[in-house]
Amino acid sequence: MEVENISSNKSFGGWNKQYSHFSDVLGCQMRFAIYLPPQAEHGAKVPVLYWLSGLTCTDENFMHKAGAQRVAAELGIAIVAPDTSPRGEGVPDDPEAAYDFGLGAGFYVNATQAPWSKHYQMYDYVVKELPALIESEFAVSDQRAISGHSMGGHGALVVALRNAQRYSSVSAFSPISNPINCPWGQKALGNYLGDDHQSWAQYDASELMRASTSQMPALVDQGSADNFLVEQLQPEALQAASSQSGYPLELRMQEGYDHSYFFIASFIEDHLRFHAANFKNV
Amino acid sequence: MEVENISSNKSFGGWNKQYSHFSDVLGCQMRFAIYLPPQAEHGAKVPVLYWLSGLTCTDENFMHKAGAQRVAAELGIAIVAPDTSPRGEGVPDDPEAAYDFGLGAGFYVNATQAPWSKHYQMYDYVVKELPALIESEFAVSDQRAISGHSMGGHGALVVALRNAQRYSSVSAFSPISNPINCPWGQKALGNYLGDDHQSWAQYDASELMRASTSQMPALVDQGSADNFLVEQLQPEALQAASSQSGYPLELRMQEGYDHSYFFIASFIEDHLRFHAANFKNV
Repeated sequence: MEVENISSNKSFGGWNKQYSHFSDVLGCQMRFAIYLPPQAEHGAKVPVLYWLSGLTCTDENFMHKAGAQRVAAELGIAIVAPDTSPRGEGVPDDPEAAYDFGLGAGFYVNATQAPWSKHYQMYDYVVKELPALIESEFAVSDQRAISGHSMGGHGALVVALRNAQRYSSVSAFSPISNPINCPWGQKALGNYLGDDHQSWAQYDASELMRASTSQMPALVDQGSADNFLVEQLQPEALQAASSQSGYPLELRMQEGYDHSYFFIASFIEDHLRFHAANFKNV
Repeated sequence: MEVENISSNKSFGGWNKQYSHFSDVLGCQMRFAIYLPPQAEHGAKVPVLYWLSGLTCTDENFMHKAGAQRVAAELGIAIVAPDTSPRGEGVPDDPEAAYDFGLGAGFYVNATQAPWSKHYQMYDYVVKELPALIESEFAVSDQRAISGHSMGGHGALVVALRNAQRYSSVSAFSPISNPINCPWGQKALGNYLGDDHQSWAQYDASELMRASTSQMPALVDQGSADNFLVEQLQPEALQAASSQSGYPLELRMQEGYDHSYFFIASFIEDHLRFHAANFKNV
């Protein structure tokens, strides 16, 4: 596997970098961003927090707007932010170029329906191909945590709940908590997976948490002034699922905060310290 | 004077807001951003840090990318970020729409040459009209500091050096330190001010600092890996000027950092604490 460096910016004593690589899983060229804390330059193999972004985002939004590098540098944690869908010519988009499906909206699923199934395999990309690449190319350990926002909060919870042995902790901001029961989720899952609702449940954090026997710690922050709270996000479904299965979920309602990166920036430090506390030997 | 609220996002317990207002000085509708720390909601009149952005920026770049709100919330400082030029239909732009002149590139001068002089009066806007507006509309005191980046670092230094009684401290990231002697400065000053080089010196931080008798503290950070360092920024001119006049300038070269907001984010905390230390009774 080969990666090509696109940009390097020094940041809090470490490096914020972008790379391009050809993804076999997605069948296209992909870009990701990585923050390497100062500790990674001095021989240490640092743990990695994967960040999955929301609708319309690329690998850049989180790295530019969340202000995570300061605490990642202090704690010695690398952060990897992939793109939110396959990209490039030949990758089909929503016929109406809607923001909530197609390019920028891969929903972190393995599509089974034409024409999406050829490229839209973001679940396997995030779970398998990207970590293998990161762990072969950079000074990182195999300790992983995962977090994300909105569609990416959904992705983080789904990926962690289905792969409890691969992550030490999971967190999310404003996740789409019950996509089988909201318009964003129904549109995406219906198009990517077709009518087989059985398969949808494998990409629904509330369904997965209700059935989970894992004790991987989970932290979720949700703003009370989020425009998407009632119709799309439904954190109460996640809370109910955790109560049913006894899953260790900490769900925090944050008074007055909305769906923006101003919200994420306000609480990302808590999430980084939460993940650091759950890594071994950090 | 009337301001119209455009956006409000809760951020670190305070509020990040955007407003639109008609500027008499600029003869057009203008937008600015303001961060109001939590203290401003509880009756305190907080001091204000004005932030002047660089070429191509609007009122948004700093508020989205610098990560300043966290420390501003802690210290109880409001931050105001104006746009970088007059805007709107009827405001002339560079005929070639170059990034370094015209819209997004007002250089914080009062233009004297047609067709620029009708709208391009950013110096008066920043020094007089905007602070008057801010101090009448928000819970802020008349304690002011000023900072900026690149073209905005130039603007901050010029504004502070010419108005020592109005600001308690000044700082800059990667300022255009000697615009009368660099291509960006010569293009802008030549177009906005014409051939009268006497008038250019009033907008040159090094010329002003060399002649200054003020003791207003100044902090400047400059990245050593900045692509514009040698040709456009020339911090050595500022250093020489401060040595000649005995001006209290702290110029710090930051090894490996570039011209981006990753650099600003890495050191903005230092600047906020520097300004806080120079406000009275904060």
